[in-house]
Amino acid sequence: MSVRIFSGGQRIESIPADDRGLAYGDGIFETMRAHGGELPWWDAHWQRLAHGAQRLGFPAPRQALVREQAQAMLEGGDGVLKLLVTRGSGARGYAPGVATPPTWVLSLHSLPPAPAQGLCLRWCQTRLSLQPALAGLKHCNRLEQVLARAEWNGSTGNPDPADEGLMRSTEGDVVCATAANLFVLQEGRWTTPPVDRCGVAGVCRGWLLAHADVREKRLSVTDVETAQAVFLCNAVRGILPVARLGAARTWPAHPLVAELQARLADAHPGFGRH
Amino acid sequence: MSVRIFSGGQRIESIPADDRGLAYGDGIFETMRAHGGELPWWDAHWQRLAHGAQRLGFPAPRQALVREQAQAMLEGGDGVLKLLVTRGSGARGYAPGVATPPTWVLSLHSLPPAPAQGLCLRWCQTRLSLQPALAGLKHCNRLEQVLARAEWNGSTGNPDPADEGLMRSTEGDVVCATAANLFVLQEGRWTTPPVDRCGVAGVCRGWLLAHADVREKRLSVTDVETAQAVFLCNAVRGILPVARLGAARTWPAHPLVAELQARLADAHPGFGRH
Repeated sequence: MSVRIFSGGQRIESIPADDRGLAYGDGIFETMRAHGGELPWWDAHWQRLAHGAQRLGFPAPRQALVREQAQAMLEGGDGVLKLLVTRGSGARGYAPGVATPPTWVLSLHSLPPAPAQGLCLRWCQTRLSLQPALAGLKHCNRLEQVLARAEWNGSTGNPDPADEGLMRSTEGDVVCATAANLFVLQEGRWTTPPVDRCGVAGVCRGWLLAHADVREKRLSVTDVETAQAVFLCNAVRGILPVARLGAARTWPAHPLVAELQARLADAHPGFGRH
Repeated sequence: MSVRIFSGGQRIESIPADDRGLAYGDGIFETMRAHGGELPWWDAHWQRLAHGAQRLGFPAPRQALVREQAQAMLEGGDGVLKLLVTRGSGARGYAPGVATPPTWVLSLHSLPPAPAQGLCLRWCQTRLSLQPALAGLKHCNRLEQVLARAEWNGSTGNPDPADEGLMRSTEGDVVCATAANLFVLQEGRWTTPPVDRCGVAGVCRGWLLAHADVREKRLSVTDVETAQAVFLCNAVRGILPVARLGAARTWPAHPLVAELQARLADAHPGFGRH
């Protein structure tokens, strides 16, 4: 893993021990798909990052410097580039205190393998709590996702064929997968849950809302189980058709999913035809 | 600030850039009051830490080593010792993956000044979300507390005399202060909110539940405002009488608070009479 760490405009050797990202998850991140050394969705990622920093009340680093460093790390190649930005160093205690330069970390990772077929999903027991003050942000308080993801293939060592897990809020509505947004086809129309109470406003989700006929509506378990087609999406893996949910529900490949995949492949060169 | 960083049993120079505590707040912490080089509540802190690590599904470091290092750092003095333990290094993604040694950080801080008089409290607008899977733990997902604490004397730069802020859950019940538990006297009896849906099971709170006549019960805003006496507590500052809440409500010093302070001073030598 290639990594560069900065404090404001200054490159530093390592994460300060008093970093508030480490202490409190007091930060935000973006995970971007690079293609041929480019980051085709840079603007959308930066917009979400800047919005998150504003809502948490700390400055984002200088965009031009981050992008220049990102491009230098990519060296023209493909991969996944993660950008983490924290509030920076701080004294003990929750008070943000005097403004310090944000700590930011760029790390380059290999592309995940493209799934050979539709995903198998499971239901997670861990629920998402309702917190409008943080909903939508890709912030670093991710223990709910960590616990949900640990429910299979995880700490138990129990083999399980699931590729992803669907998460419900504490009120029972279906929100997303642990690391992807959820889209379902109902009566020929795409629906995705809102992210106003929990969940992340995914960049691929945002692209779909802007470029396809999608409505935002809360979904029940039954809504998902009776959908005509289901897919997950995120900015690293694009659109991922779902083939199975739990033991009972299966979906054959659906032409409307393939159509969206084709449109996405035209819009973002990293997401070639599957 | 004096700091020592370890990976499992090995002392290391700095926080690894791929630490899951930094990435996801995937860790827990304890903040302990040291007195004359000793940590009088070590057992209670360690018990909560071990319980937290178990619930999050990662190993705690070896207790004897942590304690030995803590004592070496204290050099017989007073102060605040913070112990942070994370799941350690990990690949990108929420899956905890293969077990790695926990990262742990000991840092020594100066004692906060003892308040000259009763605290002035305010109501925080930021609410605590309901998450039974994490409730009670002193985990590192603390953005709610950071946002609540930033409501005054914070990023706005607005001077405000409040010493602490009371937080309600998203359902409206009063849970705690941003960095302390809450006790109120009702009809001559102490009550503290349960921490089964949100909030932290504070070590000083635990001592009070074990050594005083305290019941756990959800509290409304009116319950707090009509209480005969109110105090906050935590393991660093002990019992802190409250003198004022918002603009309207004031409380004179109450003998039953002073009595609990005296008992605490007998039980924990760091908390001498105020």
